[in-house]
Amino acid sequence: MQGLGNDFVVLDATAEPIELNADLVRRLADRRFGIGCDQILIVEPPRLPGTCFHYRIFNADGSEVEQCGNGARCFARFVRDQGLTDLDEIPVGTAAGPIRLALQPDGGVRVDMGAPILAPERIPFLAERIATTYSLELAGESLEIGAVSMGNPHAVIQVADVATAPVARLGAQVEVHHRFPQRVNVGFMQVLAPDRIRLRVFERGVGETLACGTGACAAVVQARRLGLVEPRVRVELPGGTLTIEWDGPAPMLPSVWMTGPAVHVFRGEIEP
Amino acid sequence: MQGLGNDFVVLDATAEPIELNADLVRRLADRRFGIGCDQILIVEPPRLPGTCFHYRIFNADGSEVEQCGNGARCFARFVRDQGLTDLDEIPVGTAAGPIRLALQPDGGVRVDMGAPILAPERIPFLAERIATTYSLELAGESLEIGAVSMGNPHAVIQVADVATAPVARLGAQVEVHHRFPQRVNVGFMQVLAPDRIRLRVFERGVGETLACGTGACAAVVQARRLGLVEPRVRVELPGGTLTIEWDGPAPMLPSVWMTGPAVHVFRGEIEP
Repeated sequence: MQGLGNDFVVLDATAEPIELNADLVRRLADRRFGIGCDQILIVEPPRLPGTCFHYRIFNADGSEVEQCGNGARCFARFVRDQGLTDLDEIPVGTAAGPIRLALQPDGGVRVDMGAPILAPERIPFLAERIATTYSLELAGESLEIGAVSMGNPHAVIQVADVATAPVARLGAQVEVHHRFPQRVNVGFMQVLAPDRIRLRVFERGVGETLACGTGACAAVVQARRLGLVEPRVRVELPGGTLTIEWDGPAPMLPSVWMTGPAVHVFRGEIEP
Repeated sequence: MQGLGNDFVVLDATAEPIELNADLVRRLADRRFGIGCDQILIVEPPRLPGTCFHYRIFNADGSEVEQCGNGARCFARFVRDQGLTDLDEIPVGTAAGPIRLALQPDGGVRVDMGAPILAPERIPFLAERIATTYSLELAGESLEIGAVSMGNPHAVIQVADVATAPVARLGAQVEVHHRFPQRVNVGFMQVLAPDRIRLRVFERGVGETLACGTGACAAVVQARRLGLVEPRVRVELPGGTLTIEWDGPAPMLPSVWMTGPAVHVFRGEIEP
């Protein structure tokens, strides 16, 4: 399955448990010797009260991750397509806690991505106090950034033209800036209209990707804080378009909602 | 399926024709939005007398190619695994003419790769007469190469240590050298023993690859001409090992035989 080009091998372990170890994950995820994917998503029976399923996500290198917006959409599409549920709103447990996924009439999926985190120490980002923008000193230049966590840290940089933005060069510099002690994802955002932005994301440890769900959320949060956009924004990424909704900023930060596609590409069998 | 990491989506069109166009090929071959592969191989009813099947190969960009050694092995494994034949030696038609494939007891496949072509004008390579080695002038240096065609042109360069050979730099220079009017694949060969060589190949229009079947054949032909190896040689490529057999050189050049693995990775269904 894929969501905006972020692709997944989804395994159904609801009837029978599947034991994945790091070596097997790497073999399945290998694009030439295995099936090939960014992540492996395994669908399991529920563990948390009030949920119908549990799912876990493994990176291609074998490490387990807590959450993935594109993966959450594919999970929801999968359990419906496989006839494992007929709910439109699916409560599901993840390593990051319970989340709620809503299937849309057009085949897309709407995901509660949780509230953004703006307090510098919780991003984590080294700053004396919370602010809408911060000046980041780089070799020879000063860069205005926003700092937002969506469970993972994001620096958001507003640019005039995302097509010509120096994503690789600046992304690599900001990613490892000493003020982000756990490093950072770097988003380059061009505001096209109050309901439309264009975004490229340099992902921590990866480089530029086709589509980063949490990066889209962070960009809209930052654009809202700057007063540039409405509560509902289409975010155009290289891999496709997400709709991000956020009613903030407000004293009690509300959740960010992300809606986007989840596509079943092929169905297969493997004997590993 | 994959052979030494060269991977294929194999489609069975023996019972019902499958119409592939370039756009569909590109969509199926896309590693993020589609199934993902280097090439698509389509198995069809026989067209040539004396053959049991016909097959065609399409590159991921939608163009059709005549032959592919790794693909031929996967084709043979496929028709046996699918129960489409119970022959051990399978005569099959390709766009390059009929070929014969032999299934080995260990699951590998032996392929007649045809006779090498050494005449410069048929490689094509600009030279006054046929020779075992040629001096190629590059910017500031002179390089000793062998020139061999296995249906596609190869320059073979003997090196002392293939791990440290400047494959990317020299490969890119030799590939477009004016004496190879149709450009050339460039092999870097280290002779480890009379029955064992190590090889890295810079493929024309692609760059370095995990395993080039015709490159392995060309390297052994050249090593035989230099008197460095026996008629049966294990060729260690980054993606795995091929066994190449060649009884030449001789006035009537015999066929080169290639034996190597062909692995069924997964079976799937797609509704394009």
